[in-house]
Amino acid sequence: MRHGGDLITYRDLYGGEFIDFSSNINPLGVPNGLKDIIYNKIDELTFYPDIKYRKLKKKIAVYLGCKDENVVVGNGAVEIIDDTIMALGKKVITTTPAFSEYSLRGQVHNKRVIEVKYNKDFTVNTNALIKHLEEGDLIILGNPNNPTGLRVEPNKLDMLYKEVVKKDAYLLLDEAFFEFAPKDYDSINLFKKSKYKNIIILRAATKFFGMPGIRLGYACTSKDIAEKINKIKLPWSINTIAEIAGNYIFDNKDYIEKSIDLIFEERKFMMDELKKISWIKAYNTDTNYILIQLLKSNEKEIFNFFARNGILVRKCSSFKELGNRYIRVAIKDRKNNKKLIEVFNKFEKEIL
Amino acid sequence: MRHGGDLITYRDLYGGEFIDFSSNINPLGVPNGLKDIIYNKIDELTFYPDIKYRKLKKKIAVYLGCKDENVVVGNGAVEIIDDTIMALGKKVITTTPAFSEYSLRGQVHNKRVIEVKYNKDFTVNTNALIKHLEEGDLIILGNPNNPTGLRVEPNKLDMLYKEVVKKDAYLLLDEAFFEFAPKDYDSINLFKKSKYKNIIILRAATKFFGMPGIRLGYACTSKDIAEKINKIKLPWSINTIAEIAGNYIFDNKDYIEKSIDLIFEERKFMMDELKKISWIKAYNTDTNYILIQLLKSNEKEIFNFFARNGILVRKCSSFKELGNRYIRVAIKDRKNNKKLIEVFNKFEKEIL
Repeated sequence: MRHGGDLITYRDLYGGEFIDFSSNINPLGVPNGLKDIIYNKIDELTFYPDIKYRKLKKKIAVYLGCKDENVVVGNGAVEIIDDTIMALGKKVITTTPAFSEYSLRGQVHNKRVIEVKYNKDFTVNTNALIKHLEEGDLIILGNPNNPTGLRVEPNKLDMLYKEVVKKDAYLLLDEAFFEFAPKDYDSINLFKKSKYKNIIILRAATKFFGMPGIRLGYACTSKDIAEKINKIKLPWSINTIAEIAGNYIFDNKDYIEKSIDLIFEERKFMMDELKKISWIKAYNTDTNYILIQLLKSNEKEIFNFFARNGILVRKCSSFKELGNRYIRVAIKDRKNNKKLIEVFNKFEKEIL
Repeated sequence: MRHGGDLITYRDLYGGEFIDFSSNINPLGVPNGLKDIIYNKIDELTFYPDIKYRKLKKKIAVYLGCKDENVVVGNGAVEIIDDTIMALGKKVITTTPAFSEYSLRGQVHNKRVIEVKYNKDFTVNTNALIKHLEEGDLIILGNPNNPTGLRVEPNKLDMLYKEVVKKDAYLLLDEAFFEFAPKDYDSINLFKKSKYKNIIILRAATKFFGMPGIRLGYACTSKDIAEKINKIKLPWSINTIAEIAGNYIFDNKDYIEKSIDLIFEERKFMMDELKKISWIKAYNTDTNYILIQLLKSNEKEIFNFFARNGILVRKCSSFKELGNRYIRVAIKDRKNNKKLIEVFNKFEKEIL
């Protein structure tokens, strides 16, 4: 299993529906009104999407607080990761454990890939990153990182960025889970004064707006890098429905606030509950998923037990460095979160 | 202008709506019922698309008459062109004039690109293609070719394929406009007995099913090549709505027949009418667009005149070899085709 959210495989294997804790999607579902907007505009499928995505970029620029010329869009965040690697990286320096595509896409494009281990507490080892950094290289960092859940601390980010600029290299911050994170810093604001020189800040509609099916990623970067990426992009890669959704969702302030509040509250609930369970270690998180170390079991046993109880969790052995004693669970709404906790307790009673 | 269909630019420039003869889309619009299917399934946006697109590949295999394992899917045909170049081509050998992305994607992936000119009558110069062909190379041929409109003749295709197999090279036939072409041969049938060894036959939902906004391309190839392409593909590149549409459209026999009949009839009408106009040369075509040489004008003058009369045509100087005396027009329904002919006649009266 390279990725979470593969419901269809498990429907076939276990023959039923699941509560999906394996992919980290906003439990509120898609914003209200989106369904009608799409229905009313379906005739636009008879046209190509705007090859320059002008209106969409304007909407995103307003949402992010940057200029249109700084915005790059993609068919999911993963396409922008791919485009950035193609357009920029001499070699790719990334971390492990992390989203597997950082390294894979580097390999697909025949780049040298260096993977730097996280520290034991899953904070970034900036010194190790810098040690490998040369002119033209691309560092890719999850911020917050998947599956470990933590953001790069502001002082480390500042230090790292200075090195990147000094060496004329590039830093791609994958902030696909940004909206779920605490508001102590916002990279878009942080790097505004440097006009996003040598940095690409990547975000996604997928997770926060509850629509992984729509495939819409976007990034804020310098005008220069945006031009380089646009030059090598496939034409029309964001389809018309994603374009329509993108033109709608960012105005939906009510949904945005509700989602942020929900995740903040449920994160606290989940962490409190998980910490009561003696045979697991739940790692602190800045986002809407939690990495859990299994002190008295393994991912296979837990996965199967939870699947038999209607819940899909993410096994983590496909992430390098983690071995077979870790799982990742999403944070959902109270009703489902309670069910997850119940199944942990059930496992303790019946199996341990 | 690298591509047709850029309505938004021209809406801005000319301040009005156009009948778009610059992109080659089925004039019937999207199949009946698609709108309701999408509306009823919009909640599926809250899930990732099937990362393996199992149901979709099954539907396409039935439509094409091949096995599931032979099917590759993409975010538009252009993504499959890109994937094929990445996965296979030592160097890329293509033709000119042709769809610009064949060469561009080769360049983006740092491949050597060789462009072979069409013969004067826009038939393929197979000898010139073969002269450059070495082991591992990828030949890309539009079939029918865009913007010239002709298919590769069966005897040439046979000869070329034998050379490709002999040299262990690859042949990508871009058949995005296949359904509009005469039914004298079907490449999927033709290469079935050789199990699609060394060949990729590419098609698209975009044009024939009237939905360029949906971005859905698919190809039939050997199991071996399909695996190579799937290995380097971006995950989830076809979004959920395209997946839903793809699961629906291929069963729609009535729409398919109606569309084929319409284009056959209108192609005859258009060719008859265009041949009456003395100051242009309309080239024979196997598909739903016509290349027109302007014997007494140039693309700019014609483009502007037609735009002022509410019609968008495709200037062709962005296609290599064609210069500024060619335009391309789509074949639409009778009402619109008549309007196009009227504007030609109006130009003759007012300008020539």
